[in-house]
Amino acid sequence: MQARHDGRSASELRPVSFELGFPGATAGSVLVRAGNTVVLCIASLSEEVPQWLAGKGKGWVTAEYNMLPGSTSPRKPRDRKKVDGRTTEIQRLIGRSLRAVVDQTTLGERLVTVDCDVLQADGGTRTASITGAYVALFDLLANCDNLSPSGRWPLVDSVAAVSTGIVEGNVLLDLDYSEDSTAEVDMNVVMTGSRQFIEVQGTGEGGTFSHAQLTSLLESASAGIEQLSVVQAEVLNRRKS
Amino acid sequence: MQARHDGRSASELRPVSFELGFPGATAGSVLVRAGNTVVLCIASLSEEVPQWLAGKGKGWVTAEYNMLPGSTSPRKPRDRKKVDGRTTEIQRLIGRSLRAVVDQTTLGERLVTVDCDVLQADGGTRTASITGAYVALFDLLANCDNLSPSGRWPLVDSVAAVSTGIVEGNVLLDLDYSEDSTAEVDMNVVMTGSRQFIEVQGTGEGGTFSHAQLTSLLESASAGIEQLSVVQAEVLNRRKS
Amino acid sequence: MQARHDGRSASELRPVSFELGFPGATAGSVLVRAGNTVVLCIASLSEEVPQWLAGKGKGWVTAEYNMLPGSTSPRKPRDRKKVDGRTTEIQRLIGRSLRAVVDQTTLGERLVTVDCDVLQADGGTRTASITGAYVALFDLLANCDNLSPSGRWPLVDSVAAVSTGIVEGNVLLDLDYSEDSTAEVDMNVVMTGSRQFIEVQGTGEGGTFSHAQLTSLLESASAGIEQLSVVQAEVLNRRKS
Amino acid sequence: MQARHDGRSASELRPVSFELGFPGATAGSVLVRAGNTVVLCIASLSEEVPQWLAGKGKGWVTAEYNMLPGSTSPRKPRDRKKVDGRTTEIQRLIGRSLRAVVDQTTLGERLVTVDCDVLQADGGTRTASITGAYVALFDLLANCDNLSPSGRWPLVDSVAAVSTGIVEGNVLLDLDYSEDSTAEVDMNVVMTGSRQFIEVQGTGEGGTFSHAQLTSLLESASAGIEQLSVVQAEVLNRRKS
Amino acid sequence: MQARHDGRSASELRPVSFELGFPGATAGSVLVRAGNTVVLCIASLSEEVPQWLAGKGKGWVTAEYNMLPGSTSPRKPRDRKKVDGRTTEIQRLIGRSLRAVVDQTTLGERLVTVDCDVLQADGGTRTASITGAYVALFDLLANCDNLSPSGRWPLVDSVAAVSTGIVEGNVLLDLDYSEDSTAEVDMNVVMTGSRQFIEVQGTGEGGTFSHAQLTSLLESASAGIEQLSVVQAEVLNRRKS
Amino acid sequence: MQARHDGRSASELRPVSFELGFPGATAGSVLVRAGNTVVLCIASLSEEVPQWLAGKGKGWVTAEYNMLPGSTSPRKPRDRKKVDGRTTEIQRLIGRSLRAVVDQTTLGERLVTVDCDVLQADGGTRTASITGAYVALFDLLANCDNLSPSGRWPLVDSVAAVSTGIVEGNVLLDLDYSEDSTAEVDMNVVMTGSRQFIEVQGTGEGGTFSHAQLTSLLESASAGIEQLSVVQAEVLNRRKS
Repeated sequence: MQARHDGRSASELRPVSFELGFPGATAGSVLVRAGNTVVLCIASLSEEVPQWLAGKGKGWVTAEYNMLPGSTSPRKPRDRKKVDGRTTEIQRLIGRSLRAVVDQTTLGERLVTVDCDVLQADGGTRTASITGAYVALFDLLANCDNLSPSGRWPLVDSVAAVSTGIVEGNVLLDLDYSEDSTAEVDMNVVMTGSRQFIEVQGTGEGGTFSHAQLTSLLESASAGIEQLSVVQAEVLNRRKS
Repeated sequence: MQARHDGRSASELRPVSFELGFPGATAGSVLVRAGNTVVLCIASLSEEVPQWLAGKGKGWVTAEYNMLPGSTSPRKPRDRKKVDGRTTEIQRLIGRSLRAVVDQTTLGERLVTVDCDVLQADGGTRTASITGAYVALFDLLANCDNLSPSGRWPLVDSVAAVSTGIVEGNVLLDLDYSEDSTAEVDMNVVMTGSRQFIEVQGTGEGGTFSHAQLTSLLESASAGIEQLSVVQAEVLNRRKS
Repeated sequence: MQARHDGRSASELRPVSFELGFPGATAGSVLVRAGNTVVLCIASLSEEVPQWLAGKGKGWVTAEYNMLPGSTSPRKPRDRKKVDGRTTEIQRLIGRSLRAVVDQTTLGERLVTVDCDVLQADGGTRTASITGAYVALFDLLANCDNLSPSGRWPLVDSVAAVSTGIVEGNVLLDLDYSEDSTAEVDMNVVMTGSRQFIEVQGTGEGGTFSHAQLTSLLESASAGIEQLSVVQAEVLNRRKS
Repeated sequence: MQARHDGRSASELRPVSFELGFPGATAGSVLVRAGNTVVLCIASLSEEVPQWLAGKGKGWVTAEYNMLPGSTSPRKPRDRKKVDGRTTEIQRLIGRSLRAVVDQTTLGERLVTVDCDVLQADGGTRTASITGAYVALFDLLANCDNLSPSGRWPLVDSVAAVSTGIVEGNVLLDLDYSEDSTAEVDMNVVMTGSRQFIEVQGTGEGGTFSHAQLTSLLESASAGIEQLSVVQAEVLNRRKS
Repeated sequence: MQARHDGRSASELRPVSFELGFPGATAGSVLVRAGNTVVLCIASLSEEVPQWLAGKGKGWVTAEYNMLPGSTSPRKPRDRKKVDGRTTEIQRLIGRSLRAVVDQTTLGERLVTVDCDVLQADGGTRTASITGAYVALFDLLANCDNLSPSGRWPLVDSVAAVSTGIVEGNVLLDLDYSEDSTAEVDMNVVMTGSRQFIEVQGTGEGGTFSHAQLTSLLESASAGIEQLSVVQAEVLNRRKS
Repeated sequence: MQARHDGRSASELRPVSFELGFPGATAGSVLVRAGNTVVLCIASLSEEVPQWLAGKGKGWVTAEYNMLPGSTSPRKPRDRKKVDGRTTEIQRLIGRSLRAVVDQTTLGERLVTVDCDVLQADGGTRTASITGAYVALFDLLANCDNLSPSGRWPLVDSVAAVSTGIVEGNVLLDLDYSEDSTAEVDMNVVMTGSRQFIEVQGTGEGGTFSHAQLTSLLESASAGIEQLSVVQAEVLNRRKS
């Protein structure tokens, strides 16, 4: 296999960074960069819960995902009349991923919404959103005094996500846009810091994949998520000291 | 493990049947039953293609999915103002699954829409829709004279789908509604008749799963799809003779 | 006058049948066939009534009507953004027709919705819906234990409907699609089993009609509804024994 | 039978008037008053026809109906998100009624829209709209030079409409709001100046009606429409001189 | 400067009139004419206040604005799916202008809505709406017995509005449509009867304006509003005697 | 007068900065900060113009405005079904302001859209959007080779905007959120670099203002815009060298 167009090896992540406290000093706000993909994740806490949650004695974590019009070229029109199918799928995925690591009974009757707004898109926006949303959620919760009646910390594990795919027959980790648009198979994997799966979504649009290929894709993703979990931990450790 | 509530073994499908030609004599119409889940799949061919397809010299296969209000108890309100996120996800999945086995260049500039309307819902409606949609699509195409300018048959393989999941720690095949609503992990798998994967979607809502469990789930689904492919072939063979 | 294209006489109904318990064993579900027109009518009971009904101490019967996309050729796009005018008119008509034979004070504060989904359309879908909806409603109510606080049976009469029209100057009963699309005058009549009118809707789109023609149309419809009432009664008697 | 609350006999119309040229000097604009019901009908001609009409070499007449919020007490909220079912039914009825007396081939490829905006509502707004819309349409067409390539006058007859109903067992002509809201049966009849029916819509909401009652209702409406046609003709004759 | 196309001087208003009690005898209804611009303003009082107002012990005055389709040529399609931006801006402006002269604490928990429906449009519809809406509001309130628990009169001042603009370099008062569509600068001014500003909106679409021009525009508007306030007072005085 | 809560004098702007090239290297992208208000302005050029522009031989500049949900506390729900009135007003204002300084005939048939997405809101978001949008537009145009067939530079002037208001009787420049929410009068002013007015919008919600106060407000705004124009020029000069 030739080198990738940006010089990475097949199993190499793009440079990843988390800027906590962007754009202001509010808790729960982080700017994630994975290569040229840039996502602003802001977690907000609300005492006004949706009706179906009232009286259940527990909280709920949800997410919204959106691409800014100027995040792509050509410009992407705003979803102002209805939310398109892709957006709906992605924000449901982010919400499920976060809830898998939250003990919602510790939140009291509160709603946490994590907004993931893509400022610049170069592939992997949904996985960068999940990885960043966890950091924003942690930061928000760590800044809440007396969050939980029980005094228990709501997060039972960390969560991160990455994409893998098959491009010209090769399994590549963390596809950028140019790779993603030519991939035969595209897979998104969400895992916890303790290496359990939360979500596996592998799709062959216009192609199929064998059992052996599926195994390689899962191994590649698993290794990538392990690295992302380390960076998340470093950022969150730094904020505590 | 105890027997399942309907007496099936862990690796046993629900009774499956296909009624071709329901409700009338139109080609491309099939009533699929998988246990108490009943889906009407109707494939329609249109010479009026969407604008983005015009002039490309090839066709497109798409799908729509809908649950009739009376298919569930309590009654499910109709999607008359907007399509909900779950519906959008499912119909995109059905469309991708069908397109994976169609050589769209053989269709000419034509649009095939397969409508999957759930008449009765008892779990597994999306997988029954895929399995039935393939039969409806085959029946429609086989009834078209002079379909393809090239004379080539558009279907390069068959496609079927099934769900598996982990319920009380056990891997179960083809979950019905009562099993699905208590599952720790839910997985939908779409495969071709030649045992290649088209789609793998595994989700731990409120739980996670290990690498070993993922392997078991994939094996269970794979065996189920093999059986469904046999029943599809029998039904479609019968119509030819 | 020549024989009709399907061999019927001018005053002859199409073959009509009711399949109670389709597609499953749920009460309140019936598949109606009138010639090639096929409608699935499912009645559902809800304890959650709309806000305007709360505290009034009585119930409400309403209906929804929908044509499945594959019920016509060419395929009819789904009403997913808004309900078209024809659909609205029809479902209001079905609701009014049912309410005319229901003593709503006997229902308690409950909402009954009868969904009429057209699986195959060949003219007369609104009248087949009314005729079938009555059967579905009866079946639902007869399966409810302790429905009414008063112990009274809610249905005060039966209801059925049929179309008539003037085609090439002749009054024809129960028009199919090919007749309907060339009719000078189109009339839908809803009557009770005791031969009272509930609704008369006669329209000359692109034509007008005389007093004498109106009289003939009403006589034709009246005779047709009398026959339909007999078939309804037979089906519903059979279910009781 | 007692006198009606406003002193009319059972077969007496409310005072009716047509103010041509309200609110300005534009052709095709008329203010209709039927008792306290006041409707502004404005007919507009457009050379930009809808796509489905292009290239057919004929015109189309359509109508829109709307109640101003302040036309009723309590105030009626505007239809700004969707058009309600009743509005849709009414404007389809107005359009059909007008088209029945127009030879659309004489219009060339033009669209005529008649807007009926109810300024004050006291029952019978749909029938007043039809009766006024005809006057507005005539006035617009009579002011068009070189309207028709053929030189033929597009209107083949006049059209007017009235309501009748059964209130406390009596057949009453031209119901006002207080009568309409207590009617057992409500009927709207549309007829031409030459006494042919265009539309008959009789409804027993919460009641039914016999064949004899139907006959009485039709006779009452027929006599009312004859009087309205005379007033229409007088107004339109006056404008010509 | 040449005379204006209708013979007015630069600082001359169009003829203005108020017809109270149009179209019927209801309080709070007025037909305003400013030249060929005709607006029907109807004020309605509701005891059912919006949720955000409940329990606050005060009232609210709001407004809606709409152009009838036939008010312009060519016909303006109805806002039936969404309200366009211009309409929203205008009705917010009308509402703010009225609230500036209402002591809302005197209304009790009541909602007053003033509907401004443009029957004929020839420029200045928003300013005519404000000037007429005040008259409608006054008339409604003056007809309410026991309106205010405190017995205080809710209106603390009168309000009127007018447009000015720069056309071919000249400052003109009360632009009609032909002047407005060629204006370099367009300004709408809302003032009280006691000559205080409520709103100043000056816009150079495709042009800019100097400080000196701004001063001239404000003087012109101020003089116009003084005259309008006199006519308002005359009409409202007449109704009391 | 006491010092303002953040220590500014009455006529002092908040600290303002422009970060060109955020978040990536794309031309036409700028992050504006005015105190704690942060707006991302991205200008995009499209060759696909709206239908009404086709064939006119000139371009069009438009703008969209949006507040990210996390930009406020409590979180502001997304406009996903319809755009609210305030948003519509603001984006129309931004568009008009930009067009006043663009010679659109130099653009060819191209559409420029400037998206202003508020990342953090602390008052003055609409004026910061205008001031930033000009910088983004300049940067985009300066990066286009062969933009104009004529070779002329499209921008005829610069544009900036600021708010002023009356708070507790004092005229204050550049209100932040806490000041804005208690202001008796609120004014937004848009001016060119050469000190001409483009837009003046002064509103007394719940108050009125005299001619003398209006004069003070305009002077305050004018001085503020002069300073903003200097900072804009510095940033844009720096990019050229």
